[in-house]
Amino acid sequence: MSDINGAQALIRTLVACGVDTCFANPGTSEMHFVAALDTVPEMRGVLGLFEGVATGAADGYARLAERPAVTLLHLGPGLGNGLANLHNARKARVPMINVVGDHATYHKQYDAQLESDIETVAHNVSPGWVRTSQYTAELGRDAAEAVAAARTPPGQVATLILPADVSWSPGGDVATPVEPPARSTVPADTIDAVAKAVRSGEPVGLLVGGAALRQRGLMAAARIAAAVQARLLCETFPARLERGAGLPAVERLAYLGEFALGQMAGLRHLVLVDAKAPVSFFAYPDKPSYLVPEGCEVHVLATGGDDVAGALEDLAEAIGAAADGAAVQPASRPALPTGELTPDAIAQAVGALLPEGAVVADEANTSGLTAPLHTAGASRHDWLCLTGGAIGQGLPVATGAAVARPDRKVIALQADGSALYTFQALWTQAREALDVVTVLYNNRSYAILNMELNRVGAEPPGPKARSLLDLSDPNIDFVSMARGLGVPATRATTAAELSDQLARALVEPGPALIEAMVPGFG
Amino acid sequence: MSDINGAQALIRTLVACGVDTCFANPGTSEMHFVAALDTVPEMRGVLGLFEGVATGAADGYARLAERPAVTLLHLGPGLGNGLANLHNARKARVPMINVVGDHATYHKQYDAQLESDIETVAHNVSPGWVRTSQYTAELGRDAAEAVAAARTPPGQVATLILPADVSWSPGGDVATPVEPPARSTVPADTIDAVAKAVRSGEPVGLLVGGAALRQRGLMAAARIAAAVQARLLCETFPARLERGAGLPAVERLAYLGEFALGQMAGLRHLVLVDAKAPVSFFAYPDKPSYLVPEGCEVHVLATGGDDVAGALEDLAEAIGAAADGAAVQPASRPALPTGELTPDAIAQAVGALLPEGAVVADEANTSGLTAPLHTAGASRHDWLCLTGGAIGQGLPVATGAAVARPDRKVIALQADGSALYTFQALWTQAREALDVVTVLYNNRSYAILNMELNRVGAEPPGPKARSLLDLSDPNIDFVSMARGLGVPATRATTAAELSDQLARALVEPGPALIEAMVPGFG
Repeated sequence: MSDINGAQALIRTLVACGVDTCFANPGTSEMHFVAALDTVPEMRGVLGLFEGVATGAADGYARLAERPAVTLLHLGPGLGNGLANLHNARKARVPMINVVGDHATYHKQYDAQLESDIETVAHNVSPGWVRTSQYTAELGRDAAEAVAAARTPPGQVATLILPADVSWSPGGDVATPVEPPARSTVPADTIDAVAKAVRSGEPVGLLVGGAALRQRGLMAAARIAAAVQARLLCETFPARLERGAGLPAVERLAYLGEFALGQMAGLRHLVLVDAKAPVSFFAYPDKPSYLVPEGCEVHVLATGGDDVAGALEDLAEAIGAAADGAAVQPASRPALPTGELTPDAIAQAVGALLPEGAVVADEANTSGLTAPLHTAGASRHDWLCLTGGAIGQGLPVATGAAVARPDRKVIALQADGSALYTFQALWTQAREALDVVTVLYNNRSYAILNMELNRVGAEPPGPKARSLLDLSDPNIDFVSMARGLGVPATRATTAAELSDQLARALVEPGPALIEAMVPGFG
Repeated sequence: MSDINGAQALIRTLVACGVDTCFANPGTSEMHFVAALDTVPEMRGVLGLFEGVATGAADGYARLAERPAVTLLHLGPGLGNGLANLHNARKARVPMINVVGDHATYHKQYDAQLESDIETVAHNVSPGWVRTSQYTAELGRDAAEAVAAARTPPGQVATLILPADVSWSPGGDVATPVEPPARSTVPADTIDAVAKAVRSGEPVGLLVGGAALRQRGLMAAARIAAAVQARLLCETFPARLERGAGLPAVERLAYLGEFALGQMAGLRHLVLVDAKAPVSFFAYPDKPSYLVPEGCEVHVLATGGDDVAGALEDLAEAIGAAADGAAVQPASRPALPTGELTPDAIAQAVGALLPEGAVVADEANTSGLTAPLHTAGASRHDWLCLTGGAIGQGLPVATGAAVARPDRKVIALQADGSALYTFQALWTQAREALDVVTVLYNNRSYAILNMELNRVGAEPPGPKARSLLDLSDPNIDFVSMARGLGVPATRATTAAELSDQLARALVEPGPALIEAMVPGFG
């Protein structure tokens, strides 16, 4: 029997598999894992004060690092607290490993206070891979298989439930990494069939998502679009979109179904490239859920597990698209804004100042509508979206992205209501001295719900309904909140103040928050 | 067909069933429920900025109101965010109804961003009653059955999943309330069997919990204890314990198994009264999980669904206990503390100042060990504990208790690390002008984990392990955080300052927070 315990074997196996960052919010049942961290120098431990921070950070990390991090969570309630951002990570199809501590195997029968059914909760976010380790000697192998599952294209959340005695007992065995499957090559007859549709002479749209949204896939997609005058569209909420001057500009499908239908009007062929056929975010009375226009044929070029960029290049070749035919975004930046501080003014300031290689974590919701427009011609950057609709993702994702890429500046565009789900992320940014600048849009409401309340066709809202969508009374002071968590913060009430504060924050190292007082909505 | 929609029928049915308070954190799929609130004046809507606040508040409300509130949550991620405090509510066995909005029935097939498997998550916290409403006409009946399920003794969390179209469609029907079953009378032969053990002359312990912890049950238990010199013990983390001068004093079983074993040492009979046979909170290497001493026989007098107080009175009669035999706590209060600000000094200040009829929400964890001691002889009050071990319960429970009982002062004894899971509760306290005074013990660490790290037998912690249990670097400024959420806050660094600030806060209306700077632990 080896002289290391299960926890040590687990951590060493994770490191051997290329997983060297742990976003943790541990409790007593995870204490041996915590103690074992000091025996494996390669594994970094990053504390979050809430599980929604740890899980969202692991998501942001994976989007930038292109490899998984591991989370450390405390039994069923800890997994529950992480569930919203794990939901977003599942929809983002990022690789991630959750380690969820559990009671010792022999202790579960006693139904102690923290006992609950962890596996069923885990299936909500890890439908593809959930395992409860039963034997210390097999824990290393379980971990290697969890990493391989997480890294199986396009990527997924894998959950390993770790009973305390499996973790603390001696006899741990470091396992050899398990190679995940490679992406599949899209068959030639699929390429040919799509090529035929694309060259039909009828109006064509390319809807690109997932792995198609990096430089290689985007360049190939833009070649195709130029060759056949296809409309080049992007899924509404990409996990990571490379953009900026020198890259093809793609138009994101609108959140509101009416507008998305307008973007696709007249199409006879819609080619899906690692994207789903568009559906509305929510259902509304008397509005369609399925948004593909009538008479438009849907073709699938590639799905998540495929070599998506390769398929786009094959299609470009098949239709004889010019190698240098891709239209790219010219460099251009808006002027620094002056006058009233509006969401559009903030977007202009961000567009004017965005540093080369920046990462934008976008949870601005209604306040962020024009941000993509004003940043389209800025230096190259990455845009990270709220992939699963579970708000409270922006600050944690920004945190994890900054851990993954300390060489890049992260800008979090953050709505007020959403910020309050996982505001504790700022503390981790302060502790780890992460280069994250948060622009907090304070409009003192759940603005999107004011809009949706009208859209769903509910009767005109009375005072009780309005009160449940309102974040004033009392007003929230985000500067005070941020400082309380150790992050320097300022408040901007004019466009000029915002521009000044943003310019300054972008050259200072470490985190900062700017509370932008924007007009209320609704 | 009626002219009200499903949401209106649902809310009117809830009101008819005695449920008139809704703790809400809604999204788009719940907008018709929100709009319908204004059509039913009897239903109050209370906004929480996070689902852990809404669910914890519903728990605290039920503990004080002795009837359920309803929560309003947004799909699977909203339920996930509420899961930790729903876990605590499940362990507290309080009545509660969750309404979880879902996509329209016909929209689910499209796997939109917020689609997930809600029912499996709901089973974690509502094992006894989960239903997805399918028809508007039946929604009222579903609601009435949910309330009856929630109110089935001893109480439970019932979850009603509400598809948006079932909510918005016309044809809603207000249902007649469904009477929940009454508590069962404990059979005479059970009483006789327990009476025989109690009168055996051998050492007896009474372990009381749940419904036995109110005045009537406690008085009967104390009569029995006095008649046969039994040890009177209380479960470790009661949902609601009535105590103070004039009530029997019961000794809570210790959190640490070693101490609990000491409290039960020598017992030959342990009578369980709506309490479980004691087990350790966590498992530890080489320590027992099951804590009943060897050679001690366990007898069950009453369980959750029984007429628990009635069974205790029957037992008291059966053994001929004197009607006035109960020993009660004499009135006594500690002096106001001076000198260093320690957790014990805080306990003394609370004991000295606790108002008549106060409610104490106790999530002080390691900092709160002596608080029960120093408050035992204060005026009558209720003590609410962290029932399920999922931290982040204290501030929400205090919030809900204050909503239920505006005539009483609520004191939240709150550990720093735990506070950060659901700190948003303070905003709801400010908005609703609730009489909650929070004493925040800032020891700048997860102190309990420093203790547990040693207890689990892990190797001496290295710098990485210590860092994951440490809340300094940066230090958190809870005064700033509280003010940011609209709650007046002060900081105390000496026992005299704490006493002064507490005395002042207890006479002011509305919420207040006192950040008590106590020495670090570990």
